[in-house]
Amino acid sequence: MPNLFAVVLAGGSGTRFWPASRKSRPKQLLALAPGDPQSLIAATIRRIEPLCPPERVLVATGAHLVDATRRALPWLPESAFLGEPVPRNTAPCIAWASSLIHRRDPEALVMVLPSDHYIGDEPGFRAVVERAVDSARTAITTIGIEPARPETGYGYIEAAEELAPGVRRVARFIEKPDRERAEQYVASGRHFWNSGMFFFRASEMLEAVRAHLPELAAGLERLEIAARAGTAAEERELAELFPRFPAISIDYGVMERAGQLHVVPGSFDWNDLGSWQSAWELANKDGDGNALDPGALSVRGRGNLVRDLRTARTPRVVALAGVDDLCVIETDDALLIIPRERAQEVRLVVEALEQAGKKQLL
Amino acid sequence: MPNLFAVVLAGGSGTRFWPASRKSRPKQLLALAPGDPQSLIAATIRRIEPLCPPERVLVATGAHLVDATRRALPWLPESAFLGEPVPRNTAPCIAWASSLIHRRDPEALVMVLPSDHYIGDEPGFRAVVERAVDSARTAITTIGIEPARPETGYGYIEAAEELAPGVRRVARFIEKPDRERAEQYVASGRHFWNSGMFFFRASEMLEAVRAHLPELAAGLERLEIAARAGTAAEERELAELFPRFPAISIDYGVMERAGQLHVVPGSFDWNDLGSWQSAWELANKDGDGNALDPGALSVRGRGNLVRDLRTARTPRVVALAGVDDLCVIETDDALLIIPRERAQEVRLVVEALEQAGKKQLL
Repeated sequence: MPNLFAVVLAGGSGTRFWPASRKSRPKQLLALAPGDPQSLIAATIRRIEPLCPPERVLVATGAHLVDATRRALPWLPESAFLGEPVPRNTAPCIAWASSLIHRRDPEALVMVLPSDHYIGDEPGFRAVVERAVDSARTAITTIGIEPARPETGYGYIEAAEELAPGVRRVARFIEKPDRERAEQYVASGRHFWNSGMFFFRASEMLEAVRAHLPELAAGLERLEIAARAGTAAEERELAELFPRFPAISIDYGVMERAGQLHVVPGSFDWNDLGSWQSAWELANKDGDGNALDPGALSVRGRGNLVRDLRTARTPRVVALAGVDDLCVIETDDALLIIPRERAQEVRLVVEALEQAGKKQLL
Repeated sequence: MPNLFAVVLAGGSGTRFWPASRKSRPKQLLALAPGDPQSLIAATIRRIEPLCPPERVLVATGAHLVDATRRALPWLPESAFLGEPVPRNTAPCIAWASSLIHRRDPEALVMVLPSDHYIGDEPGFRAVVERAVDSARTAITTIGIEPARPETGYGYIEAAEELAPGVRRVARFIEKPDRERAEQYVASGRHFWNSGMFFFRASEMLEAVRAHLPELAAGLERLEIAARAGTAAEERELAELFPRFPAISIDYGVMERAGQLHVVPGSFDWNDLGSWQSAWELANKDGDGNALDPGALSVRGRGNLVRDLRTARTPRVVALAGVDDLCVIETDDALLIIPRERAQEVRLVVEALEQAGKKQLL
């Protein structure tokens, strides 16, 4: 699709999939999709290649992650990587990327994609993306996933009337609901999971930023002026400006303040891979619901996830007996044991290690 | 104490403390007592040294374990080690050892001790042993441990009237009780844990064997005759006879058929170390009841046991989050995860490995 650019968001603190993920190796750099040896970010970019070639992909990540991210995506040009000097949530980096794209093509359409989600049905996904790109010609558009279950871990989008086939107006964004409301949403037919994917004309996004985040818009103008003096000047300006940008998400900063928003519902197999619990959901499991790496065994136990991510694979057995619904994750320097339903609490381990000064484990 | 000999029982299949224990390294060869770097069998023999010097100690073990056991007890003479050609439970080996001791000293008193229990109060233990040895001059005697809690994992001895200060007649032996009966036993003042320790005159034991296990008695006589022809002849005879001995415990084969039995109650700190659960009971614990080896951490979890028994201690963290009452045991080639209250089920893991043909892990 000509004029279509992708901005792939690749920040991340590396806590949710600890000990596999680290500060220097966040989730998107891991191969967490079952049967796929690619990193999630590589899969993300390969998935959209039929719609958007490598030279129109930008990857926004933390400055400290640029080298590792580049190594994961060796086929992308050097200029594809945007390193944020400090983390400032999504609005500044999406606005910055939109500004860069707008300089290259004032007619550009932009899709913003998370780099660390799982998508099962790729042709189905691309069909929905094409519809969203079309919709983005008239208004900022998001993709809403048809809810497969009453998930309480996701945000939802409530859709209003249909504006065109497969395109609806957004009534409102909804925070993670409780179980009862989630069940109502699944039954309603007008609530969708918030996929975190956005589609817009670069010019429309920049207008919206000027309207709702004027400080940020002013900064982007200074950046554009500095860029005319050369790359070194632009980088100096960036390092000075970025820390002063408001740390605000694109959802709060722009989307919820925008006038008309569109949502394109999609039903491709999708998972935000929010924790080891999600990894278990996606994994191939035996008759007892255990997802075990080779060398692991479980007796009288159900629903366990065992991942052996050691690089030095000395022969070793991991034996679970009488244990249910547990995640057991091994790396060269760490072993994590956590109940699946409490997998979010892995951050407490990371905090404890941080407090103990164990930087090499973070 | 002159005339006093010790027979230390050191068989064992190596399953209960897997993966630390193995067929070739059963429990008594491990250092499982907190703060004591000695193996349990070494501690057992050192503990009785004030009463019974090394030259009057016999260690009965499986033929395949003699070398490893000797290495654990380098100060004992070569002749101390009796290797059973095949496992035949406790009656044959105790009778055989009694016969050997009787040849050396017809007046001998014998104490039979398990090699793999924990005893906290050693002077207290020796005082009880001395009383039991005295009692053994008139009848086969056992030590009964005053129950510290309503334990359902132990057998009990019901005591009858006092025969001498601190010596009571045995009314009966009782199998592992349910919780309710265990509580009654603790309250009764006349029920004691069966310690598996026996004291007797060698001549009395041999008489009892002749009376209740005549086949075994006949075998022992043939062995004695062969011994007069030299060690080689004795070993040949042993290899031929042992497999034909009845596989029966001393409890069933002799004790319960004997006339008068004595029990000497004792209250020294004792634990049969029956499983990783026992190891947790004995271990030093933090305020949340966690017994963690260095390099382990637990957040929002209670009652866990983490043992890192790897020989190559590359720096590594074992992190438990939101996990309660779990045993996590690591060796170089295995990692076991099992709930404390199901620690007995480790045998299911050993069986599964056996069925999978993983001999190197057994």
